[in-house]
Amino acid sequence: MTLLSLADIHAAARRLDDVTVRTPLMPCPWAGDAARSLLLKPENLQVTGSFKLRGAYNRLASLSAEERRRGVVAQSSGNHGKALAYAGRLLGAEVTVVVPGTAAQVKVDAIRHQGATVREVPAAELATTTRMLAEEYGYIVVPPFDDLGIIAGQGTVGSEIFEQTARLGVVPDTVLVPVSGGGLISGVAAALKQLLPGVRVVGVEPELAADARQSLHSGHRVSWPTRLTGRTIADGMRSSSVGTIPFAHIQEYVDDIVTVSEDEIRDTVAVLARESHIVVEPSGAVATAAYLHRGDDLPSGKVHVCVVSGGNIDSGLLARIVAG
Amino acid sequence: MTLLSLADIHAAARRLDDVTVRTPLMPCPWAGDAARSLLLKPENLQVTGSFKLRGAYNRLASLSAEERRRGVVAQSSGNHGKALAYAGRLLGAEVTVVVPGTAAQVKVDAIRHQGATVREVPAAELATTTRMLAEEYGYIVVPPFDDLGIIAGQGTVGSEIFEQTARLGVVPDTVLVPVSGGGLISGVAAALKQLLPGVRVVGVEPELAADARQSLHSGHRVSWPTRLTGRTIADGMRSSSVGTIPFAHIQEYVDDIVTVSEDEIRDTVAVLARESHIVVEPSGAVATAAYLHRGDDLPSGKVHVCVVSGGNIDSGLLARIVAG
Repeated sequence: MTLLSLADIHAAARRLDDVTVRTPLMPCPWAGDAARSLLLKPENLQVTGSFKLRGAYNRLASLSAEERRRGVVAQSSGNHGKALAYAGRLLGAEVTVVVPGTAAQVKVDAIRHQGATVREVPAAELATTTRMLAEEYGYIVVPPFDDLGIIAGQGTVGSEIFEQTARLGVVPDTVLVPVSGGGLISGVAAALKQLLPGVRVVGVEPELAADARQSLHSGHRVSWPTRLTGRTIADGMRSSSVGTIPFAHIQEYVDDIVTVSEDEIRDTVAVLARESHIVVEPSGAVATAAYLHRGDDLPSGKVHVCVVSGGNIDSGLLARIVAG
Repeated sequence: MTLLSLADIHAAARRLDDVTVRTPLMPCPWAGDAARSLLLKPENLQVTGSFKLRGAYNRLASLSAEERRRGVVAQSSGNHGKALAYAGRLLGAEVTVVVPGTAAQVKVDAIRHQGATVREVPAAELATTTRMLAEEYGYIVVPPFDDLGIIAGQGTVGSEIFEQTARLGVVPDTVLVPVSGGGLISGVAAALKQLLPGVRVVGVEPELAADARQSLHSGHRVSWPTRLTGRTIADGMRSSSVGTIPFAHIQEYVDDIVTVSEDEIRDTVAVLARESHIVVEPSGAVATAAYLHRGDDLPSGKVHVCVVSGGNIDSGLLARIVAG
């Protein structure tokens, strides 16, 4: 399988230049000591509230004018759909998003607010419904992660981490990245391992949805039923398995995948609000949760970068978690 | 009175380059329409959680080695003290902070966490206690706002807004800035009016602590008793009056000062958490509150930049406001 090249990522970065926020690299003196330091890459501050805009816009901008006129359809737990709806509005493409009944309401509302059409279906029917709509209406399918154009967009998170750490004069030892379908970690790892071969890239997922860890360790792509992955509070991480293209990148570039508990995820959402003043959804907090609670599971090394993947959390849940 | 030059601000920017975060300019599609658009400058993401690090570090870095050895003292409602404590640790200066009994607990804890000494006194005794400690121990006084070195540091918020809007290819029509002691708006306005003479700079403060608006409109510096300013939820905006050096800059460079209600401040803290995924303290929300709720009081123009000044809010208060 052809893996992502640096040229693909740099081309995506040029397409995204006027559209996405160059999220800062945030030092966290509250989380450091003599042995370890933490830098956050807060993609919850990205337009539409997650890294997903990078991939969605890059993919949509690569379609022909005729394809854009046909419109696009995507399955999404919310953030990919919200990003695609926003990108579709900028680029003049009609967007339909197929979401599971378990998606966070704040995400579903946001997709509609951008003018896209939403179809809610049971989680097990996401793929078939998407395919059916594509056949019936001629829409182009924009997959959430199993696509090189999507992965190239997400990879710009990695190239930015490289440029921003270099500007600070530090070399990251370990970069921690949330894993669900695997698009984000594939792009970030492909970028960083080619730019900075000595860096360790570690994926993080909930214990309750640990299919990616099991896949990496067993050497083949494992699928967990949504009955199991649906248990985690991290609503963006309930996909059954990583994609086939992401899995090839994970096998090539990712050093390990570790897990965190539900309590650790909740605690980290509260800590990031209090100490770093960012609103993070549970899925977005897992990498930082691993830094804060699972240091013993991580490779040795001083400088850690944690990617915060998104911030679309229902206000009621945020209030309950922050109140402790 | 000598006002701040661009050279002073650029010198501060060079001193701060490795220390402060270049906070992004965040587009807010959720807050825009055909007539108006909003960009946020989120200084709640600054190291120590507010813009105050810019001024405090710039001032401390300008002291001689002998002065730093003597140590420094400052009065602060919290954020200046937290920033000074952090800067003191980086630069090897002992720091004492005099805080009012009404300061947010999260800020007082953070000052202590940085290794600084905290003295809590009634709000009316802040200045005398600070002076007394300086005389007794030989400390250098680092004022929170009435000082050109402090104002030059805060001015880098303005020079960054200039550079970042230029990079986006937009020209800001109106820049909204919180006003308490006046250090931030003085620096921002001095930078922007010299770099971009057509821009309007508008200050924002709570109705319950509207001494700066009254001062600008009456043409002389008015003082409100802390019994009155202490009523606002915006704990960083309870100073009795703007400083004399800030007032000269406000008279020269600031177009108007408008006010917002307590309900508007609370609503904006909740909206910024939900839509932009940032945790903002009440004082930090006032400029955005004016954009969202007081559009009729603002100059006409499309592109608005709102400075979010800080994010140090007690978790309990944040939870209550977000829960609605």
